[in-house]
Amino acid sequence: MTAPFDFAPLLAPNTPPPAVKWSGFPKYNFIGGHNDAKHLPVDALVEAATTVLRREGHTLATYGLNSGPLGYRPLREFLAAKLKRHAAIDCSPDEILITSGSMQGLELVNSLLLAKGDTVLVEQETYGGALTKLTRLGVNTIGIPLDNEGLRLDALKAKLAELKQKSIKPKYIYTIPTVQNPTGAIMGEARRAELLKIAAEHGIMIFEDECYSDLIWSGQRPRSLYAMAGGEGVIHIGSFSKSIAPALRVGYIVAKWDVLSRILALKQDAGSGALEQMVLAEFCRQHFAEHVPKLASALAGKLQTLREALAEQFGTSAEFGDPPGGIYLWIKLPDNVDTTKLAQAALAAGVSLNPGPEWSTNKDYARCRLRLCFANPEPETIKQGVAVLAEVCRREFGVPLRSANVEPT
Amino acid sequence: MTAPFDFAPLLAPNTPPPAVKWSGFPKYNFIGGHNDAKHLPVDALVEAATTVLRREGHTLATYGLNSGPLGYRPLREFLAAKLKRHAAIDCSPDEILITSGSMQGLELVNSLLLAKGDTVLVEQETYGGALTKLTRLGVNTIGIPLDNEGLRLDALKAKLAELKQKSIKPKYIYTIPTVQNPTGAIMGEARRAELLKIAAEHGIMIFEDECYSDLIWSGQRPRSLYAMAGGEGVIHIGSFSKSIAPALRVGYIVAKWDVLSRILALKQDAGSGALEQMVLAEFCRQHFAEHVPKLASALAGKLQTLREALAEQFGTSAEFGDPPGGIYLWIKLPDNVDTTKLAQAALAAGVSLNPGPEWSTNKDYARCRLRLCFANPEPETIKQGVAVLAEVCRREFGVPLRSANVEPT
Repeated sequence: MTAPFDFAPLLAPNTPPPAVKWSGFPKYNFIGGHNDAKHLPVDALVEAATTVLRREGHTLATYGLNSGPLGYRPLREFLAAKLKRHAAIDCSPDEILITSGSMQGLELVNSLLLAKGDTVLVEQETYGGALTKLTRLGVNTIGIPLDNEGLRLDALKAKLAELKQKSIKPKYIYTIPTVQNPTGAIMGEARRAELLKIAAEHGIMIFEDECYSDLIWSGQRPRSLYAMAGGEGVIHIGSFSKSIAPALRVGYIVAKWDVLSRILALKQDAGSGALEQMVLAEFCRQHFAEHVPKLASALAGKLQTLREALAEQFGTSAEFGDPPGGIYLWIKLPDNVDTTKLAQAALAAGVSLNPGPEWSTNKDYARCRLRLCFANPEPETIKQGVAVLAEVCRREFGVPLRSANVEPT
Repeated sequence: MTAPFDFAPLLAPNTPPPAVKWSGFPKYNFIGGHNDAKHLPVDALVEAATTVLRREGHTLATYGLNSGPLGYRPLREFLAAKLKRHAAIDCSPDEILITSGSMQGLELVNSLLLAKGDTVLVEQETYGGALTKLTRLGVNTIGIPLDNEGLRLDALKAKLAELKQKSIKPKYIYTIPTVQNPTGAIMGEARRAELLKIAAEHGIMIFEDECYSDLIWSGQRPRSLYAMAGGEGVIHIGSFSKSIAPALRVGYIVAKWDVLSRILALKQDAGSGALEQMVLAEFCRQHFAEHVPKLASALAGKLQTLREALAEQFGTSAEFGDPPGGIYLWIKLPDNVDTTKLAQAALAAGVSLNPGPEWSTNKDYARCRLRLCFANPEPETIKQGVAVLAEVCRREFGVPLRSANVEPT
């Protein structure tokens, strides 16, 4: 056998620490955007796979099928129609690039616009994965506080004025305007119009992430920022992860061709997975419109289960809203609770959660906050998991106080 | 409508020029690693998709299915057995990371080891996509000349000595030892052993790319470098693109856990496409062993069609070998032919080809050379395409001379 090879001297600077071995999902899985297994449309996916493979499976022999590097054309055609109907976006299939999940969308947009030392604006509480990528790029990430309609424009204007004085021009404003992650807020059209005006005045791109916008209980939503701007100065990304299945890695970028052609030049992956695109396109054409409301209805039920369980187990110690859609709830615990420590103790008891600081640029503000995803666990599991979490929190931080209705009798 | 937004001032430095609109495949498609559409196993893929989705389709509701971030476990189990049988690699499924094509494997290994200004060694003629990525990273890429067994070790030793004098330590040696791209060479075990010894002495990683090693006419191959080193100091990548279908974006990295755990930490994409992994695993378990020789046999036939067509149309003007496997032929034309210009003129006539300089670090040497992929076009199309190419080459460069057997009568 060969002697051990020491590769440590060869590592690039700033590589992250090694991953730990995966040991299965925790019993009470409240993280990671996992979805509802019961509502996974298995039969319809089988039918879609069979139909599309029989019809055009031989096209898998060429990179990009017969659709070119933007992705499977019937999927882009479905998306163009769906985005028109749903988000009022007027775009052609050639203004849509299929990506390997919206994660790749984030990376491509970052590659297009960002270099080390650049500044970007984000919502103060925002998607943790986006923050991680920006940190690795060495970008200066500034959070703008939120209210119950999302990004606060007074705070945005003040920050932009302050940066202008320092001659700093941010590259983009990253926003999740429709079912904000993690707060669930939906920004109204008046605020959207004002946001677009501010961004245009300052010559800053809007980076609109609409990964969750299909999952709104009412089915109604404002026009997207991309639609309202006629696509000018806005890059829009979305995904099928939340509406169909997260393990299918299919997302998309919508942008005017002058922008999209530059993003496409950066997509050096020989295309995103074609089978997933084909099956999704075939499935969506027939079933998307009925599938999504059914899933949303199930998720709305799970949200209420979670809210009730929290009220029962935490009493007034847990503060949270009633989001109009999505798969997560943003929760404030008493100020003395450190949710990063809570997450470690909870995991040991089988409960996974996202501690607030991972989802915020304001670590102090987020210290006693956390995000719980309610889509994956079944209702009974949600109840049990919240009970376990309350028990761990009580043990570690003394809250919630033991109350009559949960005391063993 | 909103005024046009000028995003040019926001672009990151060194972004590549915009992509051009795709306008369909050329009539005579000799580039890009496309494969044989007739041998795409559509029926077996339908059956595999149906079986695996019915059995465990609901697991698509969670990122990573129930297999964790390394990828679908049954696929890793298949690979571990196949790599053992085929390449003598002794690894566990937990030393295999499924990637979105081997392209992602290249990117991850580069992220692990390379920073701007680093030096790497590659085979002088090598995969163009690898060269493109290294150029974008700002890495100093040094080519080592090849002979008919691949990497020339005398040249490697001389270059390493020269670099050592300058206190430059390369990060890795990138090699395609088994069906080299583009030359088709297979490195014998004696040379592999010597290469490993040299790399270990200098403390340099070997980066072994075996994307084509399944497609060998004889079915026989030497042990992989990874196997011979017991995995120490070697990172191995492979793919299903060439053996099953390129549009399925499924590749893999094999490495010892201390290395792989660091690569895994860099894979921030929420997993590779799960449906493709599931369908492939189900297909491969039953059909891989019989499918690959059938495909290889068809490809061997196409290679001979290409060689005969070249001999007929180009006579002694085209020099080429008889590769023992793969999907491409590396060809030398007369010294006055500039294959970059030839490629442009040929494309206008419906023939696509890879000009030599894109596949080499030695632009002068490669100027009159080109790569033709023979896997995708049908035999009759190969013949016609070569005839068109010869006509274009004659018009542009005066060679091949018009000979009796192609003169119109």
